[in-house]
Amino acid sequence: MSAEQLRVGFIGTGIMGAPMAGHLAKAGYTVAAWNRTPDKATALESNGVTVSDTPQQAVTQADVVVVMLSSGPVCDEVILGPQGLLAAMKAHSTLVVMSSIPVETAQHQAQAATKHDIGYLDAPVSGGERGAQDASLAIMVGGDVETFELTSALLSVMGNPVRVGPAGTGQLAKLANQLIVANTIATVSEAVLLAERGGADPAKVREALLGGFADSTILRSHMPRMIANDFAPGGPAKWQLKDTQTAIALAEQFSLELPVSSLVNGLFKDLVAHGDGELDHSALIRELRRRNELPNGD
Amino acid sequence: MSAEQLRVGFIGTGIMGAPMAGHLAKAGYTVAAWNRTPDKATALESNGVTVSDTPQQAVTQADVVVVMLSSGPVCDEVILGPQGLLAAMKAHSTLVVMSSIPVETAQHQAQAATKHDIGYLDAPVSGGERGAQDASLAIMVGGDVETFELTSALLSVMGNPVRVGPAGTGQLAKLANQLIVANTIATVSEAVLLAERGGADPAKVREALLGGFADSTILRSHMPRMIANDFAPGGPAKWQLKDTQTAIALAEQFSLELPVSSLVNGLFKDLVAHGDGELDHSALIRELRRRNELPNGD
Repeated sequence: MSAEQLRVGFIGTGIMGAPMAGHLAKAGYTVAAWNRTPDKATALESNGVTVSDTPQQAVTQADVVVVMLSSGPVCDEVILGPQGLLAAMKAHSTLVVMSSIPVETAQHQAQAATKHDIGYLDAPVSGGERGAQDASLAIMVGGDVETFELTSALLSVMGNPVRVGPAGTGQLAKLANQLIVANTIATVSEAVLLAERGGADPAKVREALLGGFADSTILRSHMPRMIANDFAPGGPAKWQLKDTQTAIALAEQFSLELPVSSLVNGLFKDLVAHGDGELDHSALIRELRRRNELPNGD
Repeated sequence: MSAEQLRVGFIGTGIMGAPMAGHLAKAGYTVAAWNRTPDKATALESNGVTVSDTPQQAVTQADVVVVMLSSGPVCDEVILGPQGLLAAMKAHSTLVVMSSIPVETAQHQAQAATKHDIGYLDAPVSGGERGAQDASLAIMVGGDVETFELTSALLSVMGNPVRVGPAGTGQLAKLANQLIVANTIATVSEAVLLAERGGADPAKVREALLGGFADSTILRSHMPRMIANDFAPGGPAKWQLKDTQTAIALAEQFSLELPVSSLVNGLFKDLVAHGDGELDHSALIRELRRRNELPNGD
């Protein structure tokens, strides 16, 4: 089906959801949106989005429903139950949950969707507010191949969707993403300390490393924050900790020992325990300075 | 001075040095090269490089001498002493040591050069054989600002030179580079194990993560080797271990605790102890599989 023929229900038009819904409308999809705080949805009307008074109203006509709410329990509350989205949606439509929720929650929602003859994808994203605005989100998709193929053109309007496996594995990929981010922040922090302590200019070290084997998004975007001691969040450390804890708990369920990730999870735990949870996750360098009795500039 | 007016002595034309010397000759520098095994230098004559019979002969007329030998002791042997390069070089010429050598060795060589009225830079590289061939090496430079400015046009012919601080800090930046590489390999290995164990396709997870916060050169170039169990070296694990051990020893000298790097150093130690030292450094995933009693396909 072309964009013009597809009706989309968009549930949750907050910081991330609003630009995502806007991109869909601008791409020609017929979008009905609902948000708990209505004014955030109303701002989208200039893009041609229709604002619905209830979640049910936004989805009854929809071929595809996109959910971008804040957490697993909030998603479950809106999706499941006699007043939930699944009960209101058409048979043979598709539910795409783009929130970051536990793997098991996604698997359970997928089973519930199947009972309603509704296709299900979990499709969490990485790239933050800027990625949502630029339509450059990394979109990690779990679900059936057929359901993915039905919706991949739509997802491509918001970023780069890749199917990684069955329902729940989109969330698994997101956790792998978050582990890599956390560990790379710890790693780059240690490199900054070594460079500083040995009398090198860490900003110049960063410049020298660009393009080589040590290059990464964290080196490019987070290392300057560490050097400048500028930890206005981006992604707050407390959320990073929540993700690393979820990932480590899942690894333990799998009887999988991940030594580096476990260590870094502990570092983030200490960082938050020391009162730095509201700072950007790159503030992990503060915890490493603390351990080494180095000044943190405060 | 323009390239045509500058005479370069190039000491060590092995796998890395040969293409680097060739680039200098092609850029118009007058290059005299010496190599312990003469045929490796002779192959450069078609690029206009003159082959010298002795290191001294290659450097007596040189404005800039580039050293690309295999280790700190070999560099010291060729550079220092009454028959060494410093004794043979002109006053006010410049010695650029591009080998990876200990920070202290570089500092000591810099002091010796000063006594001969010779400028000194330590300028180790990252990017490997391909980087040398493509003239895209990351070049991490320690030394005086003035000496760096005199040679930066020449260094730019071989890659991207960045001065990071005084003599020795080029080597320090290289160690920071190697720590980041080692830790990122460990991190991506753990992400592969988590993805596999949870039923996701790790190759698709990699694809989904490209361009996001978890992106890195290691994700792009090494993760496919982990997934394919293809560990033909690249950079052998035993060299990675040598670098992480040097970096950790230096951090200890600085009384600096680097918990993630120390842990990863221990993982590489175990990998090599288990007989995998000749494999590519991305084979660290084998050590993590071993710890988790997962099959390694051999």
